[in-house]
Amino acid sequence: MTLATDDPSIGLVFPQTLNVDAPLALSRGGSLPGFSLVYETYGELNRPRNNALLVCHALSGHHHAAGFHSLEESKPGWWNTCIGPGKPIDTDRYFVVCCNNIGGCHGSTGPLSINPETSLPYGPEFPEVTVKDWVVTQALLADHLGIESWAAVAGGSLGGMQAMQWAIDLPDRVRNVLVIASAARLSAQNIAFNEIARQAILNDPNYRGGYYSQNGVLPEQGLMLARMLGHITYQSDDGMRNKFGRSLKSGDIRAGRAVEFQVESYLHHQGRSFSKTFDANTYLLMTRALDYFDPAADFDNDLCRTFEQGDCNFLVVSFSSDWRFSPARSKEIVDALIAARRNVSAVNIETPSGHDAFLLPVPRYIEVLKAYLSRIADALESSP
Amino acid sequence: MTLATDDPSIGLVFPQTLNVDAPLALSRGGSLPGFSLVYETYGELNRPRNNALLVCHALSGHHHAAGFHSLEESKPGWWNTCIGPGKPIDTDRYFVVCCNNIGGCHGSTGPLSINPETSLPYGPEFPEVTVKDWVVTQALLADHLGIESWAAVAGGSLGGMQAMQWAIDLPDRVRNVLVIASAARLSAQNIAFNEIARQAILNDPNYRGGYYSQNGVLPEQGLMLARMLGHITYQSDDGMRNKFGRSLKSGDIRAGRAVEFQVESYLHHQGRSFSKTFDANTYLLMTRALDYFDPAADFDNDLCRTFEQGDCNFLVVSFSSDWRFSPARSKEIVDALIAARRNVSAVNIETPSGHDAFLLPVPRYIEVLKAYLSRIADALESSP
Repeated sequence: MTLATDDPSIGLVFPQTLNVDAPLALSRGGSLPGFSLVYETYGELNRPRNNALLVCHALSGHHHAAGFHSLEESKPGWWNTCIGPGKPIDTDRYFVVCCNNIGGCHGSTGPLSINPETSLPYGPEFPEVTVKDWVVTQALLADHLGIESWAAVAGGSLGGMQAMQWAIDLPDRVRNVLVIASAARLSAQNIAFNEIARQAILNDPNYRGGYYSQNGVLPEQGLMLARMLGHITYQSDDGMRNKFGRSLKSGDIRAGRAVEFQVESYLHHQGRSFSKTFDANTYLLMTRALDYFDPAADFDNDLCRTFEQGDCNFLVVSFSSDWRFSPARSKEIVDALIAARRNVSAVNIETPSGHDAFLLPVPRYIEVLKAYLSRIADALESSP
Repeated sequence: MTLATDDPSIGLVFPQTLNVDAPLALSRGGSLPGFSLVYETYGELNRPRNNALLVCHALSGHHHAAGFHSLEESKPGWWNTCIGPGKPIDTDRYFVVCCNNIGGCHGSTGPLSINPETSLPYGPEFPEVTVKDWVVTQALLADHLGIESWAAVAGGSLGGMQAMQWAIDLPDRVRNVLVIASAARLSAQNIAFNEIARQAILNDPNYRGGYYSQNGVLPEQGLMLARMLGHITYQSDDGMRNKFGRSLKSGDIRAGRAVEFQVESYLHHQGRSFSKTFDANTYLLMTRALDYFDPAADFDNDLCRTFEQGDCNFLVVSFSSDWRFSPARSKEIVDALIAARRNVSAVNIETPSGHDAFLLPVPRYIEVLKAYLSRIADALESSP
């Protein structure tokens, strides 16, 4: 089998679907009459069924976290850097599960799905979903796969929020929690960036109140702007300087008012390809789920008390140049975990790659994940 | 006379206009058949004509820097905090001049002006202008006012770029240069933020290729987005946290998908009022002038050599939490000035107010400006 990478990869992978026919009550008041979860698994569940590891995706992620869907595919899953044989999330040792969250646009029930009550796509009528709802549905997937308790739940950014919510809502069903480049809740600045992204989509004349698909149009300009803005905030000032500096695209600054600097050209390209593959209503839902995440709100805003139940262990990773989910936000989590007398390892990784670093092969980061997860796997494999 | 402030103010002020009938060649290749500059002056030019101080405005600024236009006006000029009797830019001692730059939308020749060749507004056909062009036109204003040499040229942000350009292009006509919260050139991140703001305007269906005024519409949504984005980047994460935290507007997070957090409501309000008073084509021009500013490009990218001519003195001020024009950018200017053997004072002010701090009454900042400018005025007044 030849795949378009030199990287050791899990190889070809195949999405599966769990269909749940029972109604699902959602935490913000809505409900779904039933739902589907598209997911992938890598590696094998061992006989004691205790080597399962759940990977949670971030804002623009999905179930395809590693490997390739076909021999022709040039890009592997979004966390292929970390998931595979011999990699930190070692598929020779762990049974890795990743699903597209509900509200998503990659196959799980979301705004693009048909609402059985109207026989039309949900579109903007899709109910609001939260990180709590995702944990509930991920737990149903665990039931389906015969997984009583996860060896670990891991995620970066919005994925790290899901990992924390597992420890809070279902502490008996997870033994290790990996929270990477995340926050216990968004800052006003973060909410503000999300709101601008939403406004860019809502103001796009093709958004049509959310009924764009029924009208045969797509709010591509709005999504493109939202993604361009996201991209800037996922990188550091220094990282962008190293990558682009002030290089001109045309080599001639007198070229007129169109795109002139390399950085502009890069952002346009990123924004445009995203706008053709991602659903605008999903983007709105996902950013609101980010905004609303605030588990301490249920514990008198006491993050220490929030983390007191259960006895799972934590690894908290931050990146020095990440200003969207800064090291200070990770430190708040670590401080609360320590005050809650939890077993916590915390690492701040020096890198100029900003928030994006959680997806990149930053050597010390990879080593930290590998060491942490190897130790857990060693213990599993040596237990009777 | 009663004015709507307790603050000692210069009081009522009146804009004046300089009309230049000669053609103006612009640095990026275009030209104007003539132009008008709207300006205000505060204080009196002394007999030796050596106490004139030029204030340069930033992206969204104008000629109305201090005082009030009428007894009913509730908001004074944009730098009223610093300009007035007994204030750092002391109108009892200095003759202060501030003009709206060409390309602007507050009375000087810009995209809203009538192009004499077509008898229609310039709109998107207004030629590109740069910081260099503004210095040329400000020098013509100095000629008109009989000012051979400025005691000081001062500005924050894009205004600081004009102050630097004065020292580079006309070093014999300025004796002190105050560069506040500025940079010797924009970073890739800064260019990227500007590009998103431009795209928001260009994508607004009411932009109509720039011919909105002829079509009786305004690209308000685009300008609003651009301003909202600007506002986030002019404040610090901590500053926004102190101001808004995660406070809800309605007090109820279940209110639906409309504006819910205080920070969103604030940004919407700021964006909306800006979009009704500012011209979109001017916004595009001004952000491009920011992007293009790179005086070292004319000196083999050697900022030290750039600052070698003339013998004016410099004050460089930065703010600890300013991440749009960070202290590191000011340090680059200071390092180059030191290497160029220039007389330079440099201060980094601790404040959570971000880039906006340059407009705010931050006590140490006010004291620094006052001390620096008092010393200059003392020397002027004691000279024979």
